[in-house]
Amino acid sequence: MGENCLFCGIAAGTIPSQRVAENERVIAFMDINPATPGHLLVIPRAHSTDLRDTAPEDLTAATLMAQSLITRVIDRLGADGANLLSCIGPDAWQSVFHTHLHVVPRYKNDPLQLPWSPTPGDSDAIADTAAKLR
Amino acid sequence: MGENCLFCGIAAGTIPSQRVAENERVIAFMDINPATPGHLLVIPRAHSTDLRDTAPEDLTAATLMAQSLITRVIDRLGADGANLLSCIGPDAWQSVFHTHLHVVPRYKNDPLQLPWSPTPGDSDAIADTAAKLR
Repeated sequence: MGENCLFCGIAAGTIPSQRVAENERVIAFMDINPATPGHLLVIPRAHSTDLRDTAPEDLTAATLMAQSLITRVIDRLGADGANLLSCIGPDAWQSVFHTHLHVVPRYKNDPLQLPWSPTPGDSDAIADTAAKLR
Repeated sequence: MGENCLFCGIAAGTIPSQRVAENERVIAFMDINPATPGHLLVIPRAHSTDLRDTAPEDLTAATLMAQSLITRVIDRLGADGANLLSCIGPDAWQSVFHTHLHVVPRYKNDPLQLPWSPTPGDSDAIADTAAKLR
């Protein structure tokens, strides 16, 4: 476990999050600074700094959970598509140093550009979205 | 196999590419319109339109190959980081409808923004980079 690691805290449950799915290896929860409505993060429970250092079994589990969530955001939120993204290193826009995959729902003509400016979303709206995705 | 599918042609070898790695399930080759130097694509040999429809074993193999290539672009090209990206649907910037993972090397202070404007790279430089990555 990373000392003072935000996502280790979320995995441990000592830091609150809106969890959407989980299994033995990985957890999916809502990003509190959503790039688009329904933005999710998938993390391995076990700490690694970035995807290079993630155990193959954890990376596989995270990817398959992301695949399932991509289908869900399209089916349940009315998204028109999605991006799967991971950032490896600060020069690649990584800002939390615990491996994570972004699932970013996309909507026709949405204005998304990367890098996005992280801005807190409305917590009630995020909770409602999480309920639809569970 | 997708009719007239560019990436099925690359997988079959009927369309040329600079291959960097391959195994029974997946192939990695250089993007001819690199977003940054060393930009790679990883595709399953089997056709699927996007990541939602990809067999779990193929998606897993593609992800593990991408993980290996991310380490390689950092170690061999001097990249400072990387992004892993997949685009699901035209509203999410997908332009070739055969599942692919982008491995985009990142360099300190590079100007990358997404979406990028696909512009052909220099084919000799791409071939040299491929040789370093094999």
